Amino acid sequence: MPRYRIDLEYDGGPYAGWQRQAGLPTVQQAVEEAIFRLSGETVSIRGAGRTDAGVHATAQVAHVDLMKQWRGDTVRDALNAHLRQAGERVAVLAAAQVGDDFDARFSALGRHYLYRISNRRAPPALDKGKVWWVPKALDAGAMHHAAQLLLGRHDFTTFRSSQCQANSPIRTLDRLDVTRLGDEIEIRASARSFLHNQVRSMVGSLKRVGDGAWTSADLGAALEAANRAACGQVAPPDGLYLTGVDYPDG
Amino acid sequence: MPRYRIDLEYDGGPYAGWQRQAGLPTVQQAVEEAIFRLSGETVSIRGAGRTDAGVHATAQVAHVDLMKQWRGDTVRDALNAHLRQAGERVAVLAAAQVGDDFDARFSALGRHYLYRISNRRAPPALDKGKVWWVPKALDAGAMHHAAQLLLGRHDFTTFRSSQCQANSPIRTLDRLDVTRLGDEIEIRASARSFLHNQVRSMVGSLKRVGDGAWTSADLGAALEAANRAACGQVAPPDGLYLTGVDYPDG
Repeated sequence: MPRYRIDLEYDGGPYAGWQRQAGLPTVQQAVEEAIFRLSGETVSIRGAGRTDAGVHATAQVAHVDLMKQWRGDTVRDALNAHLRQAGERVAVLAAAQVGDDFDARFSALGRHYLYRISNRRAPPALDKGKVWWVPKALDAGAMHHAAQLLLGRHDFTTFRSSQCQANSPIRTLDRLDVTRLGDEIEIRASARSFLHNQVRSMVGSLKRVGDGAWTSADLGAALEAANRAACGQVAPPDGLYLTGVDYPDG
Repeated sequence: MPRYRIDLEYDGGPYAGWQRQAGLPTVQQAVEEAIFRLSGETVSIRGAGRTDAGVHATAQVAHVDLMKQWRGDTVRDALNAHLRQAGERVAVLAAAQVGDDFDARFSALGRHYLYRISNRRAPPALDKGKVWWVPKALDAGAMHHAAQLLLGRHDFTTFRSSQCQANSPIRTLDRLDVTRLGDEIEIRASARSFLHNQVRSMVGSLKRVGDGAWTSADLGAALEAANRAACGQVAPPDGLYLTGVDYPDG
């Protein structure tokens, strides 16, 4: 059966996350139903990142096996037509046939996330649901400086959801950059893989550094504690975007 | 009575435009109701730009006279609290007391608009309602080149709504820049003032240049015709943002 790679953008707001859940709208279900309308096949697609409820994606990657040979552009346009008709907030950016060895989840070499904080006194009107609103002034420079303590290979138990199903809390964080663009603070995180809630947990703790409640040393101590209780607030899903997934050969 | 300048951001999607209309939700009404909840006064605010239904603003400016002296920050925070409580998609970015001679509409020396086109095969999922989706590839360079023909002082009857109430169709266009940023085309327009639907009419005609239906010369001929029938499609409101208003002394 030919395998297809499908690149997706979605507004996570209306969804209970990526993964299928009985009785709740999910992104996976929306795409699988669009595939059913295209080919009549009941499929199970696999995504690179199992984003949580309310988390967005500008570049999620999934794969699916279909009975028939289709042109990639046909799959993209047909799925988009079905998704729009169903009123879904999901779009197929690209679809292409790939080899049988491609697995959206297990072939991934790197995952990239963006977290957006709106740091101003006025609540977001245009970006409601798309940013975390923090009215208190944050020191983005201090946040970036502290963030560098989290780079490298660590036990990230502190920044891991109690529901995380990964076998090990050890991860290697390759990038955690904090930059200010006017009233907005952008945090960019990259790693081969992340623990459940890891980005939002790190962002919530960095926010404490930004508003002066924590020093850099406090953040380092929280990491070393390897204890969920040492984590700051978990940042809300609104500001989080899966922005890219790396694979061998591009 | 002290006069206040109020800077506003809004998502135009849920509103029938800026200006009060009986029985329809408008931005003006949302702000006036928030002011009533703050001070108990029934006021009429005046905005710099009377944006149409569905048009957004990152920096609309309005003014209002209130009975009492308030700190600007107090007005901003209180109005934001009332707007949020009412579920409005409007935020007060800043509020400050100004002189009696400040008039948000008549003191304005320049108005700036941004128009966003999403130019890709996939429909917008994250930016739904915030961009004009044009799946056919557009030549942004050709659009920019042609746009320069519209600069300067002209009779803009071609690019004017039949419902426009301005006394004269003569306007001076100071800027009309078209740039591509990845899949997005941004059009930035500046003038002392615009006719009703002028930006959307110019964008709709530029889109014809971008997709090859029109040459630059066709756009110039449309301008010279000074005839509404010569206009291309009026671009939808979704992509339009009022991004700034200039006043004397900043």
